[in-house]
Amino acid sequence: MAKQNIYDNEIFFEGYQKLRERGVNANNLFEIPARYALLPDLKGLRVLDLGCGMGDDCREYIRRGAKEVVGIDISEKMLEAAKAKNADPGITYIRMPMEDLYKLEGGFDVVVSSLAIHYVEDYKGVIREVNRLLKKGGEFIFSQEHPVNSCYGGGERWTKDENGIKIYSNLANYGIEGERESTWFVDNVKKYHRMFSTVINDLIDAGFAIERLTEPVPTKELVAKYPDYYDLYHRPDFLLVKARKI
Amino acid sequence: MAKQNIYDNEIFFEGYQKLRERGVNANNLFEIPARYALLPDLKGLRVLDLGCGMGDDCREYIRRGAKEVVGIDISEKMLEAAKAKNADPGITYIRMPMEDLYKLEGGFDVVVSSLAIHYVEDYKGVIREVNRLLKKGGEFIFSQEHPVNSCYGGGERWTKDENGIKIYSNLANYGIEGERESTWFVDNVKKYHRMFSTVINDLIDAGFAIERLTEPVPTKELVAKYPDYYDLYHRPDFLLVKARKI
Repeated sequence: MAKQNIYDNEIFFEGYQKLRERGVNANNLFEIPARYALLPDLKGLRVLDLGCGMGDDCREYIRRGAKEVVGIDISEKMLEAAKAKNADPGITYIRMPMEDLYKLEGGFDVVVSSLAIHYVEDYKGVIREVNRLLKKGGEFIFSQEHPVNSCYGGGERWTKDENGIKIYSNLANYGIEGERESTWFVDNVKKYHRMFSTVINDLIDAGFAIERLTEPVPTKELVAKYPDYYDLYHRPDFLLVKARKI
Repeated sequence: MAKQNIYDNEIFFEGYQKLRERGVNANNLFEIPARYALLPDLKGLRVLDLGCGMGDDCREYIRRGAKEVVGIDISEKMLEAAKAKNADPGITYIRMPMEDLYKLEGGFDVVVSSLAIHYVEDYKGVIREVNRLLKKGGEFIFSQEHPVNSCYGGGERWTKDENGIKIYSNLANYGIEGERESTWFVDNVKKYHRMFSTVINDLIDAGFAIERLTEPVPTKELVAKYPDYYDLYHRPDFLLVKARKI
Protein backbone atom coordinates (compact mmCIF):
# COMPACT_ATOMS: atom_id res chain seq x y z
CA MET A 1 0.00 0.00 0.00
CA ALA A 2 1.50 3.33 -1.10
CA LYS A 3 2.37 5.78 1.65
CA GLN A 4 2.43 9.11 -0.03
CA ASN A 5 4.66 11.88 1.24
CA ILE A 6 4.21 14.88 -0.99
CA TYR A 7 4.92 17.26 1.86
CA ASP A 8 8.66 16.61 1.84
CA ASN A 9 8.85 17.75 -1.77
CA GLU A 10 10.54 21.23 -1.63
CA ILE A 11 8.22 22.88 -4.14
CA PHE A 12 5.12 21.46 -2.52
CA PHE A 13 6.22 22.44 0.95
CA GLU A 14 6.93 26.05 0.02
CA GLY A 15 3.62 26.43 -1.82
CA TYR A 16 1.77 24.80 1.04
CA GLN A 17 3.43 27.00 3.66
CA LYS A 18 2.39 30.13 1.78
CA LEU A 19 -1.16 28.86 1.41
CA ARG A 20 -1.49 28.19 5.12
CA GLU A 21 -0.06 31.61 6.00
CA ARG A 22 -2.64 33.52 3.98
CA GLY A 23 -5.48 34.64 6.16
CA VAL A 24 -8.38 34.27 3.77
CA ASN A 25 -8.68 30.78 2.39
CA ALA A 26 -11.22 28.02 2.44
CA ASN A 27 -9.44 26.22 5.27
CA ASN A 28 -9.53 29.19 7.59
CA LEU A 29 -13.04 30.26 6.64
CA PHE A 30 -14.77 26.87 6.49
CA GLU A 31 -12.79 23.78 7.41
CA ILE A 32 -11.26 24.99 10.67
CA PRO A 33 -14.44 26.51 12.19
CA ALA A 34 -16.50 23.47 11.15
CA ARG A 35 -13.97 21.07 12.67
CA TYR A 36 -13.68 22.96 15.95
CA ALA A 37 -17.47 23.12 16.17
CA LEU A 38 -17.53 19.30 16.18
CA LEU A 39 -14.92 18.92 18.94
CA PRO A 40 -16.00 18.01 22.45
CA ASP A 41 -14.66 19.93 25.44
CA LEU A 42 -11.03 18.81 25.41
CA LYS A 43 -10.27 19.50 29.10
CA GLY A 44 -8.15 16.69 30.50
CA LEU A 45 -8.42 14.56 27.36
CA ARG A 46 -5.85 12.61 25.36
CA VAL A 47 -5.95 13.66 21.71
CA LEU A 48 -4.39 12.11 18.61
CA ASP A 49 -3.99 14.26 15.49
CA LEU A 50 -3.58 12.32 12.22
CA GLY A 51 -1.62 14.34 9.68
CA CYS A 52 -0.82 17.10 12.15
CA GLY A 53 1.33 19.07 9.68
CA MET A 54 2.94 22.09 11.30
CA GLY A 55 1.22 21.47 14.61
CA ASP A 56 -1.05 24.53 14.79
CA ASP A 57 -3.99 22.36 15.77
CA CYS A 58 -2.00 20.34 18.30
CA ARG A 59 -1.11 23.54 20.14
CA GLU A 60 -4.69 24.76 19.94
CA TYR A 61 -5.94 21.46 21.45
CA ILE A 62 -3.50 21.98 24.36
CA ARG A 63 -4.68 25.59 24.73
CA ARG A 64 -8.22 24.22 24.98
CA GLY A 65 -7.23 22.03 27.91
CA ALA A 66 -6.18 18.72 26.37
CA LYS A 67 -3.93 16.83 28.81
CA GLU A 68 -1.85 15.26 26.09
CA VAL A 69 -1.69 15.56 22.32
CA VAL A 70 0.09 13.17 19.98
CA GLY A 71 0.58 14.52 16.46
CA ILE A 72 1.63 12.18 13.70
CA ASP A 73 2.70 13.16 10.21
CA ILE A 74 4.54 11.44 7.38
CA SER A 75 6.56 14.55 6.57
CA GLU A 76 9.84 15.35 8.28
CA LYS A 77 9.70 18.94 7.06
CA MET A 78 6.25 19.43 8.55
CA LEU A 79 7.33 18.02 11.88
CA GLU A 80 10.46 20.20 11.91
CA ALA A 81 8.24 23.21 11.44
CA ALA A 82 5.86 21.90 14.11
CA LYS A 83 8.66 21.46 16.65
CA ALA A 84 10.01 24.94 15.85
CA LYS A 85 6.74 26.85 16.06
CA ASN A 86 4.36 24.66 18.07
CA ALA A 87 6.43 22.89 20.73
CA ASP A 88 4.71 22.19 24.04
CA PRO A 89 5.47 19.81 26.92
CA GLY A 90 2.04 18.24 26.37
CA ILE A 91 2.64 17.52 22.67
CA THR A 92 4.52 14.58 21.18
CA TYR A 93 5.24 14.71 17.47
CA ILE A 94 5.88 11.38 15.78
CA ARG A 95 6.93 10.85 12.20
CA MET A 96 4.63 8.14 10.94
CA PRO A 97 2.30 7.55 8.01
CA MET A 98 -1.34 6.92 8.89
CA GLU A 99 -0.92 3.39 7.59
CA ASP A 100 1.38 2.65 10.57
CA LEU A 101 -1.14 3.47 13.29
CA TYR A 102 -0.93 -0.16 14.45
CA LYS A 103 2.39 0.83 16.09
CA LEU A 104 0.66 3.20 18.53
CA GLU A 105 -0.83 2.33 21.89
CA GLY A 106 -4.47 3.22 22.46
CA GLY A 107 -6.41 4.98 25.17
CA PHE A 108 -7.24 8.19 23.27
CA ASP A 109 -10.40 10.15 24.02
CA VAL A 110 -10.42 11.98 20.71
CA VAL A 111 -8.83 11.35 17.32
CA VAL A 112 -8.84 14.31 14.93
CA SER A 113 -7.70 14.57 11.35
CA SER A 114 -7.77 17.59 9.08
CA LEU A 115 -7.83 17.13 5.31
CA ALA A 116 -5.46 14.18 5.34
CA ILE A 117 -7.57 11.06 5.03
CA HIS A 118 -8.27 11.46 1.30
CA TYR A 119 -4.55 10.81 0.70
CA VAL A 120 -4.91 7.37 2.25
CA GLU A 121 -5.66 4.44 0.01
CA ASP A 122 -6.52 1.98 2.79
CA TYR A 123 -9.35 3.93 4.44
CA LYS A 124 -10.91 0.81 5.97
CA GLY A 125 -7.59 -0.17 7.55
CA VAL A 126 -6.93 3.29 8.97
CA ILE A 127 -10.36 3.73 10.53
CA ARG A 128 -10.20 0.25 12.04
CA GLU A 129 -6.97 1.31 13.76
CA VAL A 130 -8.53 4.63 14.82
CA ASN A 131 -11.33 2.65 16.41
CA ARG A 132 -8.82 0.50 18.29
CA LEU A 133 -6.90 3.57 19.48
CA LEU A 134 -10.01 5.20 20.96
CA LYS A 135 -11.51 4.54 24.35
CA LYS A 136 -15.09 3.29 24.23
CA GLY A 137 -17.30 6.33 23.60
CA GLY A 138 -14.33 8.24 22.19
CA GLU A 139 -14.81 10.59 19.27
CA PHE A 140 -13.30 10.52 15.79
CA ILE A 141 -13.61 13.87 14.04
CA PHE A 142 -12.18 14.34 10.58
CA SER A 143 -12.42 16.49 7.52
CA GLN A 144 -11.75 15.46 3.95
CA GLU A 145 -12.35 16.72 0.46
CA HIS A 146 -16.06 16.58 -0.23
CA PRO A 147 -16.95 13.53 -2.35
CA VAL A 148 -18.34 15.75 -5.13
CA ASN A 149 -14.90 17.34 -5.12
CA SER A 150 -12.65 14.31 -4.62
CA CYS A 151 -14.18 12.58 -7.66
CA TYR A 152 -12.48 15.11 -9.93
CA GLY A 153 -10.10 13.33 -12.27
CA GLY A 154 -9.36 15.78 -15.06
CA GLY A 155 -11.03 18.15 -17.48
CA GLU A 156 -12.61 21.48 -16.67
CA ARG A 157 -13.75 21.81 -13.09
CA TRP A 158 -16.35 24.49 -13.83
CA THR A 159 -18.65 25.66 -16.57
CA LYS A 160 -18.68 29.45 -16.76
CA ASP A 161 -21.14 31.80 -18.37
CA GLU A 162 -20.21 34.49 -20.90
CA ASN A 163 -19.17 36.80 -18.04
CA GLY A 164 -16.82 34.24 -16.57
CA ILE A 165 -19.13 33.45 -13.66
CA LYS A 166 -19.04 29.82 -12.55
CA ILE A 167 -22.52 28.41 -13.11
CA TYR A 168 -21.97 24.66 -12.88
CA SER A 169 -19.49 22.47 -11.12
CA ASN A 170 -18.67 19.73 -13.62
CA LEU A 171 -19.48 16.53 -11.80
CA ALA A 172 -18.03 13.39 -13.38
CA ASN A 173 -17.12 9.89 -12.27
CA TYR A 174 -18.57 10.33 -8.79
CA GLY A 175 -19.57 6.67 -8.87
CA ILE A 176 -16.09 5.44 -9.78
CA GLU A 177 -14.05 5.18 -6.61
CA GLY A 178 -10.30 5.01 -6.26
CA GLU A 179 -7.12 6.83 -7.12
CA ARG A 180 -7.07 10.28 -8.65
CA GLU A 181 -3.99 12.13 -9.76
CA SER A 182 -4.03 15.86 -9.51
CA THR A 183 -1.73 18.82 -9.49
CA TRP A 184 -1.49 20.77 -6.25
CA PHE A 185 1.73 22.82 -6.35
CA VAL A 186 3.40 19.72 -7.82
CA ASP A 187 2.28 17.07 -10.29
CA ASN A 188 1.02 13.62 -9.44
CA VAL A 189 -0.49 14.26 -6.03
CA LYS A 190 -2.42 11.07 -5.42
CA LYS A 191 -5.81 11.20 -3.76
CA TYR A 192 -8.47 8.58 -3.25
CA HIS A 193 -12.08 9.24 -4.09
CA ARG A 194 -14.75 7.51 -2.06
CA MET A 195 -18.48 8.01 -2.42
CA PHE A 196 -20.41 9.47 0.49
CA SER A 197 -21.93 6.07 1.24
CA THR A 198 -18.49 4.42 1.40
CA VAL A 199 -17.14 7.05 3.80
CA ILE A 200 -20.09 6.41 6.12
CA ASN A 201 -20.62 2.64 5.69
CA ASP A 202 -16.95 1.86 6.30
CA LEU A 203 -17.09 3.84 9.56
CA ILE A 204 -20.15 1.89 10.67
CA ASP A 205 -18.42 -1.39 9.79
CA ALA A 206 -15.34 -0.30 11.75
CA GLY A 207 -17.45 0.09 14.92
CA PHE A 208 -18.48 3.74 14.85
CA ALA A 209 -21.85 5.42 15.32
CA ILE A 210 -22.31 8.42 13.03
CA GLU A 211 -23.00 11.50 15.15
CA ARG A 212 -22.82 14.50 12.83
CA LEU A 213 -21.92 15.45 9.28
CA THR A 214 -21.02 18.93 8.11
CA GLU A 215 -20.79 20.24 4.56
CA PRO A 216 -19.72 23.84 5.12
CA VAL A 217 -21.32 26.44 2.91
CA PRO A 218 -20.87 30.20 3.27
CA THR A 219 -23.21 32.53 5.06
CA LYS A 220 -24.71 35.41 3.08
CA GLU A 221 -22.53 37.82 5.07
CA LEU A 222 -19.40 35.91 4.11
CA VAL A 223 -20.33 35.83 0.42
CA ALA A 224 -21.03 39.58 0.54
CA LYS A 225 -17.48 40.06 1.83
CA TYR A 226 -15.76 37.41 -0.31
CA PRO A 227 -17.88 36.86 -3.44
CA ASP A 228 -15.51 34.15 -4.74
CA TYR A 229 -16.87 31.76 -2.15
CA TYR A 230 -20.30 31.78 -3.79
CA ASP A 231 -18.94 28.75 -5.68
CA LEU A 232 -19.23 26.67 -2.52
CA TYR A 233 -23.01 26.85 -2.83
CA HIS A 234 -22.59 24.91 -6.07
CA ARG A 235 -20.00 22.49 -4.73
CA PRO A 236 -18.82 22.35 -1.10
CA ASP A 237 -15.07 21.86 -0.74
CA PHE A 238 -15.19 19.83 2.45
CA LEU A 239 -17.00 17.08 4.28
CA LEU A 240 -16.60 16.72 8.05
CA VAL A 241 -17.61 13.68 10.02
CA LYS A 242 -18.02 13.12 13.75
CA ALA A 243 -18.28 9.46 14.76
CA ARG A 244 -18.29 7.79 18.16
CA LYS A 245 -16.68 4.47 19.03
CA ILE A 246 -19.51 2.22 20.21
CA MET B 1 -47.33 23.13 5.15
CA ALA B 2 -48.14 22.16 1.54
CA LYS B 3 -49.31 18.61 0.94
CA GLN B 4 -48.62 17.98 -2.68
CA ASN B 5 -50.75 15.56 -4.65
CA ILE B 6 -49.50 15.50 -8.20
CA TYR B 7 -50.55 11.90 -8.64
CA ASP B 8 -54.22 12.71 -8.95
CA ASN B 9 -53.49 14.92 -11.93
CA GLU B 10 -54.79 12.95 -14.99
CA ILE B 11 -51.81 13.69 -17.22
CA PHE B 12 -49.32 12.90 -14.49
CA PHE B 13 -51.04 9.67 -13.55
CA GLU B 14 -51.11 8.35 -17.10
CA GLY B 15 -47.46 9.20 -17.71
CA TYR B 16 -46.49 7.69 -14.40
CA GLN B 17 -48.42 4.48 -15.04
CA LYS B 18 -46.65 4.01 -18.38
CA LEU B 19 -43.27 4.67 -16.78
CA ARG B 20 -43.84 2.06 -14.12
CA GLU B 21 -45.03 -0.50 -16.65
CA ARG B 22 -41.87 -0.29 -18.72
CA GLY B 23 -39.46 -3.03 -17.74
CA VAL B 24 -36.16 -1.24 -18.18
CA ASN B 25 -35.96 1.91 -16.11
CA ALA B 26 -33.80 3.24 -13.31
CA ASN B 27 -36.37 2.25 -10.69
CA ASN B 28 -36.45 -1.38 -11.73
CA LEU B 29 -32.72 -1.63 -12.33
CA PHE B 30 -31.38 0.31 -9.35
CA GLU B 31 -33.85 1.62 -6.80
CA ILE B 32 -35.90 -1.52 -6.26
CA PRO B 33 -32.98 -3.98 -5.90
CA ALA B 34 -31.10 -1.57 -3.64
CA ARG B 35 -34.14 -1.07 -1.41
CA TYR B 36 -34.93 -4.77 -1.13
CA ALA B 37 -31.29 -5.46 -0.30
CA LEU B 38 -31.66 -3.19 2.75
CA LEU B 39 -34.84 -4.87 4.04
CA PRO B 40 -34.65 -7.25 7.00
CA ASP B 41 -36.38 -10.62 6.86
CA LEU B 42 -40.03 -9.52 6.95
CA LYS B 43 -41.48 -12.78 8.31
CA GLY B 44 -44.17 -12.00 10.86
CA LEU B 45 -43.46 -8.26 10.85
CA ARG B 46 -45.75 -5.23 10.72
CA VAL B 47 -44.72 -2.96 7.83
CA LEU B 48 -45.73 0.60 6.98
CA ASP B 49 -45.21 1.84 3.40
CA LEU B 50 -45.10 5.65 3.01
CA GLY B 51 -46.23 6.69 -0.45
CA CYS B 52 -47.23 3.16 -1.42
CA GLY B 53 -48.55 4.18 -4.85
CA MET B 54 -50.14 1.28 -6.69
CA GLY B 55 -49.26 -1.19 -3.95
CA ASP B 56 -46.76 -3.41 -5.79
CA ASP B 57 -44.35 -3.21 -2.87
CA CYS B 58 -47.06 -3.81 -0.27
CA ARG B 59 -47.97 -7.06 -1.96
CA GLU B 60 -44.32 -8.03 -2.27
CA TYR B 61 -43.81 -7.40 1.47
CA ILE B 62 -46.73 -9.76 2.18
CA ARG B 63 -45.28 -12.34 -0.21
CA ARG B 64 -42.05 -12.10 1.78
CA GLY B 65 -43.90 -13.02 4.95
CA ALA B 66 -44.96 -9.71 6.49
CA LYS B 67 -47.87 -10.27 8.88
CA GLU B 68 -49.47 -6.94 8.14
CA VAL B 69 -48.78 -4.10 5.73
CA VAL B 70 -50.26 -0.62 5.93
CA GLY B 71 -49.81 1.43 2.76
CA ILE B 72 -50.51 5.14 2.83
CA ASP B 73 -50.66 7.45 -0.16
CA ILE B 74 -52.02 10.92 -0.79
CA SER B 75 -53.46 9.94 -4.17
CA GLU B 76 -56.93 8.46 -4.54
CA LYS B 77 -56.11 7.26 -8.07
CA MET B 78 -53.04 5.43 -6.85
CA LEU B 79 -54.97 3.71 -4.09
CA GLU B 80 -57.79 2.74 -6.47
CA ALA B 81 -55.17 1.07 -8.66
CA ALA B 82 -53.60 -0.53 -5.58
CA LYS B 83 -56.91 -1.98 -4.42
CA ALA B 84 -57.66 -3.27 -7.93
CA LYS B 85 -54.33 -4.93 -8.60
CA ASN B 86 -52.69 -5.49 -5.22
CA ALA B 87 -55.46 -6.32 -2.76
CA ASP B 88 -54.62 -8.74 0.04
CA PRO B 89 -56.24 -9.52 3.40
CA GLY B 90 -52.97 -8.52 5.08
CA ILE B 91 -52.81 -5.08 3.43
CA THR B 92 -54.65 -1.95 4.52
CA TYR B 93 -54.54 1.01 2.16
CA ILE B 94 -55.15 4.42 3.71
CA ARG B 95 -55.45 7.69 1.88
CA MET B 96 -53.25 10.04 3.83
CA PRO B 97 -50.43 12.48 3.15
CA MET B 98 -47.17 11.75 4.94
CA GLU B 99 -47.67 14.92 6.92
CA ASP B 100 -50.64 13.25 8.69
CA LEU B 101 -48.70 10.33 10.13
CA TYR B 102 -49.57 11.58 13.61
CA LYS B 103 -53.03 10.07 13.03
CA LEU B 104 -51.63 6.53 12.91
CA GLU B 105 -51.01 4.21 15.83
CA GLY B 106 -47.51 2.82 16.24
CA GLY B 107 -46.01 -0.60 16.79
CA PHE B 108 -44.45 -1.09 13.35
CA ASP B 109 -41.32 -3.20 12.92
CA VAL B 110 -40.37 -1.66 9.58
CA VAL B 111 -41.24 1.59 7.82
CA VAL B 112 -40.38 1.72 4.13
CA SER B 113 -40.68 4.55 1.64
CA SER B 114 -39.78 4.53 -2.03
CA LEU B 115 -38.94 7.80 -3.80
CA ALA B 116 -41.57 9.81 -1.94
CA ILE B 117 -39.81 11.67 0.84
CA HIS B 118 -38.27 14.33 -1.44
CA TYR B 119 -41.82 15.59 -2.07
CA VAL B 120 -42.20 16.36 1.62
CA GLU B 121 -41.31 19.82 2.85
CA ASP B 122 -41.35 18.97 6.56
CA TYR B 123 -38.76 16.19 6.56
CA LYS B 124 -37.93 16.66 10.24
CA GLY B 125 -41.60 16.36 11.19
CA VAL B 126 -42.18 13.24 9.09
CA ILE B 127 -39.14 11.35 10.37
CA ARG B 128 -40.01 12.25 13.97
CA GLU B 129 -43.40 10.60 13.39
CA VAL B 130 -41.75 7.61 11.69
CA ASN B 131 -39.61 7.21 14.79
CA ARG B 132 -42.70 7.28 17.01
CA LEU B 133 -44.48 4.72 14.81
CA LEU B 134 -41.59 2.22 15.04
CA LYS B 135 -40.94 -0.24 17.82
CA LYS B 136 -37.59 0.21 19.52
CA GLY B 137 -34.97 -1.35 17.23
CA GLY B 138 -37.33 -1.05 14.26
CA GLU B 139 -35.96 -0.17 10.85
CA PHE B 140 -36.67 2.81 8.60
CA ILE B 141 -35.60 2.17 5.01
CA PHE B 142 -36.18 4.80 2.37
CA SER B 143 -35.05 5.93 -1.02
CA GLN B 144 -35.03 9.45 -2.36
CA GLU B 145 -33.54 11.41 -5.20
CA HIS B 146 -29.82 11.63 -4.66
CA PRO B 147 -28.84 15.05 -3.24
CA VAL B 148 -26.62 15.78 -6.28
CA ASN B 149 -29.79 15.21 -8.29
CA SER B 150 -32.42 16.86 -6.08
CA CYS B 151 -30.47 20.13 -6.10
CA TYR B 152 -31.32 20.63 -9.76
CA GLY B 153 -33.31 23.81 -10.18
CA GLY B 154 -33.19 24.66 -13.88
CA GLY B 155 -30.77 25.00 -16.76
CA GLU B 156 -29.03 22.20 -18.61
CA ARG B 157 -28.66 19.01 -16.60
CA TRP B 158 -25.68 17.73 -18.58
CA THR B 159 -22.71 18.97 -20.56
CA LYS B 160 -22.23 16.86 -23.67
CA ASP B 161 -19.22 16.47 -25.92
CA GLU B 162 -19.29 16.98 -29.69
CA ASN B 163 -20.67 13.46 -30.14
CA GLY B 164 -23.56 14.08 -27.78
CA ILE B 165 -22.02 11.96 -25.00
CA LYS B 166 -22.76 13.23 -21.50
CA ILE B 167 -19.43 14.14 -19.94
CA TYR B 168 -20.42 16.25 -16.93
CA SER B 169 -23.46 16.42 -14.74
CA ASN B 170 -24.01 20.15 -14.16
CA LEU B 171 -23.96 20.51 -10.40
CA ALA B 172 -25.38 23.79 -9.11
CA ASN B 173 -26.89 25.09 -5.89
CA TYR B 174 -26.20 21.90 -3.97
CA GLY B 175 -25.64 24.03 -0.87
CA ILE B 176 -28.94 25.87 -1.18
CA GLU B 177 -31.64 23.73 0.37
CA GLY B 178 -35.38 23.95 -0.12
CA GLU B 179 -38.06 23.90 -2.76
CA ARG B 180 -37.38 23.06 -6.39
CA GLU B 181 -39.93 23.19 -9.15
CA SER B 182 -39.54 20.78 -11.98
CA THR B 183 -41.45 19.26 -14.83
CA TRP B 184 -42.18 15.55 -14.63
CA PHE B 185 -45.05 14.77 -17.00
CA VAL B 186 -46.69 17.97 -15.71
CA ASP B 187 -45.34 21.39 -14.76
CA ASN B 188 -44.69 22.60 -11.24
CA VAL B 189 -43.91 19.35 -9.51
CA LYS B 190 -42.51 20.55 -6.20
CA LYS B 191 -39.58 18.77 -4.63
CA TYR B 192 -37.40 19.64 -1.69
CA HIS B 193 -33.65 19.51 -1.89
CA ARG B 194 -31.69 18.64 1.23
CA MET B 195 -27.95 18.21 1.44
CA PHE B 196 -26.55 14.82 2.35
CA SER B 197 -25.63 16.07 5.81
CA THR B 198 -29.17 17.31 6.46
CA VAL B 199 -30.72 13.99 5.43
CA ILE B 200 -28.43 12.19 7.89
CA ASN B 201 -28.24 14.71 10.76
CA ASP B 202 -32.03 15.10 10.93
CA LEU B 203 -32.39 11.32 11.22
CA ILE B 204 -29.88 11.25 14.07
CA ASP B 205 -31.73 14.11 15.80
CA ALA B 206 -35.02 12.23 15.38
CA GLY B 207 -33.64 9.25 17.32
CA PHE B 208 -32.20 7.02 14.61
CA ALA B 209 -28.85 5.27 14.26
CA ILE B 210 -27.58 5.25 10.68
CA GLU B 211 -27.02 1.67 9.57
CA ARG B 212 -26.35 1.74 5.85
CA LEU B 213 -26.34 4.10 2.88
CA THR B 214 -26.57 3.06 -0.74
CA GLU B 215 -25.86 5.13 -3.85
CA PRO B 216 -26.63 2.67 -6.62
CA VAL B 217 -24.31 2.70 -9.60
CA PRO B 218 -24.40 0.23 -12.49
CA THR B 219 -22.26 -2.85 -12.82
CA LYS B 220 -20.05 -3.15 -15.91
CA GLU B 221 -22.34 -5.93 -17.18
CA LEU B 222 -25.37 -3.69 -16.88
CA VAL B 223 -23.68 -0.81 -18.69
CA ALA B 224 -22.60 -3.20 -21.44
CA LYS B 225 -26.27 -4.13 -21.89
CA TYR B 226 -27.78 -0.65 -21.36
CA PRO B 227 -25.09 1.93 -22.23
CA ASP B 228 -27.40 4.83 -21.32
CA TYR B 229 -26.90 4.05 -17.66
CA TYR B 230 -23.24 4.95 -17.84
CA ASP B 231 -24.48 8.41 -16.81
CA LEU B 232 -25.11 7.10 -13.30
CA TYR B 233 -21.35 6.83 -12.78
CA HIS B 234 -21.28 10.60 -13.16
CA ARG B 235 -24.36 11.26 -11.04
CA PRO B 236 -26.31 8.60 -9.14
CA ASP B 237 -30.07 9.02 -9.37
CA PHE B 238 -30.87 7.67 -5.92
CA LEU B 239 -29.83 7.65 -2.31
CA LEU B 240 -31.09 4.92 0.01
CA VAL B 241 -30.89 5.04 3.78
CA LYS B 242 -31.36 2.37 6.41
CA ALA B 243 -31.75 3.71 9.95
CA ARG B 244 -32.66 2.00 13.21
CA LYS B 245 -34.78 3.46 15.99
CA ILE B 246 -32.54 3.53 19.06
